[in-house]
Amino acid sequence: MAAMKALIISADNFEDTELLVPYYRLKEEGIEVDIASMQTGSIRGKHGYEVAVTKSLKDVTPEAYDILILPGGKAPEAVRQEKKALDLARYFFNKNKPVAAICHGGQTLISAGLVRGRKMTCYRSVAPEMNEAGALYEDTEVVVDNNLISSRQPSDLPAFMREIMKILKLR
Amino acid sequence: MAAMKALIISADNFEDTELLVPYYRLKEEGIEVDIASMQTGSIRGKHGYEVAVTKSLKDVTPEAYDILILPGGKAPEAVRQEKKALDLARYFFNKNKPVAAICHGGQTLISAGLVRGRKMTCYRSVAPEMNEAGALYEDTEVVVDNNLISSRQPSDLPAFMREIMKILKLR
Repeated sequence: MAAMKALIISADNFEDTELLVPYYRLKEEGIEVDIASMQTGSIRGKHGYEVAVTKSLKDVTPEAYDILILPGGKAPEAVRQEKKALDLARYFFNKNKPVAAICHGGQTLISAGLVRGRKMTCYRSVAPEMNEAGALYEDTEVVVDNNLISSRQPSDLPAFMREIMKILKLR
Repeated sequence: MAAMKALIISADNFEDTELLVPYYRLKEEGIEVDIASMQTGSIRGKHGYEVAVTKSLKDVTPEAYDILILPGGKAPEAVRQEKKALDLARYFFNKNKPVAAICHGGQTLISAGLVRGRKMTCYRSVAPEMNEAGALYEDTEVVVDNNLISSRQPSDLPAFMREIMKILKLR
């Protein structure tokens, strides 16, 4: 079996731990991780961590990846404006491939029209928008609905990563 | 078997990911984690993350823990001045219990007189001090010498956590 690959889509002002904890965790398992963004070079988190952009968003071919991860922070405000990001999210849903969104990360899924009827969670302040888009919002540390894993905030990262490992059959 | 417990000793100006990544990773496994410090309330990382101090350093009873983790940043400069922290580190070494130090975390082990003859690594700028104290420094992402696991910097966290999981028999 070929090594697994994960795709993280983010942008400047990401929530640092919501990107870095999944990034390091997946690498612990030997999974190759691409960080894709609209800009090239590097992106910078709200807390000042810089991470290298390994893939330009426009060049991403989704067939290459086993999971899509959408961290939060202010980044999703920019990511959700990108048609390519929305198309990528739709691809994962169409193929029933795992998508994991935390905090504001779910905003990209709202803009892609993917949340109607789905059980999920998100950062508290995003909940009204999520409900309005037809999602079945739950205020709990992690929600798994078929291919979709979602969490609320950094303190949910242990539960978020546990479910990501389960869906990848790594635990 | 009783649930495992981990002890993190740190202080203000810790390197945020070097504390938070192990913290969340251990919680993912259902391990209870205490964060001990000289101060009470919370400690604040270099990048602004605040974490609650769950145990006053003076009240720590080391028998309760399966592993000691020493994150880096500027915190070890303060931690290494605390006799109680040095005594705790010596307890883990005497009992051959796992100790994992990353970056500047090893400075606490230097002050405790525990590094002579041990293969280990640390942040580049700490290497001269480590060699002088008799350690066998290696410039590599992770070094395991019996009970002691050490890494250099945040980008080594995947290898650091992989070895921590192995020593705890969780992988």
